[in-house]
Amino acid sequence: MPIRTGLQSSWIDVSVALRNGMVHWPGDPPFECERVHDMSLGDANNLSRIRMGTHSGTHVDAPLHFIADGKGVDEMPLKATIGRARVIEISDTTSIKPRELRQHRIQRGERILIKTDNSRWVWKSDSFVEDFVYIPKEAAYFLAERGVMLVGVDYLSVGGYKCNGSEVHRIFLEAGIWLIEGLDLSLVTPGKYELICLPLKIVKGEGAPARAVVRPVTAARGHRR
Amino acid sequence: MPIRTGLQSSWIDVSVALRNGMVHWPGDPPFECERVHDMSLGDANNLSRIRMGTHSGTHVDAPLHFIADGKGVDEMPLKATIGRARVIEISDTTSIKPRELRQHRIQRGERILIKTDNSRWVWKSDSFVEDFVYIPKEAAYFLAERGVMLVGVDYLSVGGYKCNGSEVHRIFLEAGIWLIEGLDLSLVTPGKYELICLPLKIVKGEGAPARAVVRPVTAARGHRR
Repeated sequence: MPIRTGLQSSWIDVSVALRNGMVHWPGDPPFECERVHDMSLGDANNLSRIRMGTHSGTHVDAPLHFIADGKGVDEMPLKATIGRARVIEISDTTSIKPRELRQHRIQRGERILIKTDNSRWVWKSDSFVEDFVYIPKEAAYFLAERGVMLVGVDYLSVGGYKCNGSEVHRIFLEAGIWLIEGLDLSLVTPGKYELICLPLKIVKGEGAPARAVVRPVTAARGHRR
Repeated sequence: MPIRTGLQSSWIDVSVALRNGMVHWPGDPPFECERVHDMSLGDANNLSRIRMGTHSGTHVDAPLHFIADGKGVDEMPLKATIGRARVIEISDTTSIKPRELRQHRIQRGERILIKTDNSRWVWKSDSFVEDFVYIPKEAAYFLAERGVMLVGVDYLSVGGYKCNGSEVHRIFLEAGIWLIEGLDLSLVTPGKYELICLPLKIVKGEGAPARAVVRPVTAARGHRR
């Protein structure tokens, strides 16, 4: 079975790179990577240790993040984060309001990635951006009532800083909606995509760092799920 | 665009679960996960910190692991670990020999996942298994000469314990072959699959923990790459 390797992959990486000094949510453990074997010091190979909060960079939130007896990230059904997704763009530079969401005719079972003004600039900063575009409670209720399967956002939380984080997380997680936070959607235009987002399989993890990629749905791939 | 959510996903998780006390390569940092916020102690949410070696559990090896100026895992082309793959089964319970590999008519550009006797038992142990089935030098040269794109193995290293680790890694990595180590192939039968393996995007990481899933290639999906 020869495999054609000449064609370029059209997968687009929407993950944030992990590196020392990168931004993290205030109070969360920072990302740290250090060499424990180092060839430049004469070791036979390079080998590193990482330390990080599970909600740094691109990551998945499981129900257990805000629900004491909720599912862990290791119990996430793979279909929650592998399959068709839609990137919608929100123009409001303060918050994601139901009025604007309504225009997108969101359907039951959709995986929705929300591109906001965040993607234009927040990931360029190693300092935490307090006034990122967030999801207000009313918009969380709107998406939960629509019955989406997944919501992805382009900064570190679905809720705003020092405003509604607990409530917004609970609305989604109690509705059984899986969350991807920390996406970099700067290279992605609104439209239909195939999404793959795979979090580390941490047993009873209330969240986990993840890698996420998308690929535009073309006519030839239009039947794929 | 309604999405059919009723069908079960047929993705099979071939990742090892990450948990405290799990096995790791002797001398490598262990996997540790601890709650830094804990609802059972009155906190508003659960939130964890992880610490781990980058070569624990299911992970990708980048050239930089054994080549001082090699590529980091953040430079891995996504097609290395997303696309058609073949699971081949090796019956030799000591090592993966060229004689047995030859029977599988391995072609240039293939992604090859090697299921050995390891998958039957090694992941059941939290203690390191020293006598796992490994790749000898001759077999590494054989696969490198065939020009495969990716090799995946079902325990923590392509090379054996205290025998040929550095050499075998170098043969693969100098040939530009990406490696997945730490796969659990116990639920997978030999054959053709779609593979998705996504490592964390660690800048200049010589490796990174990853999540990996496979799905059998059916007749209806036979055209997919």
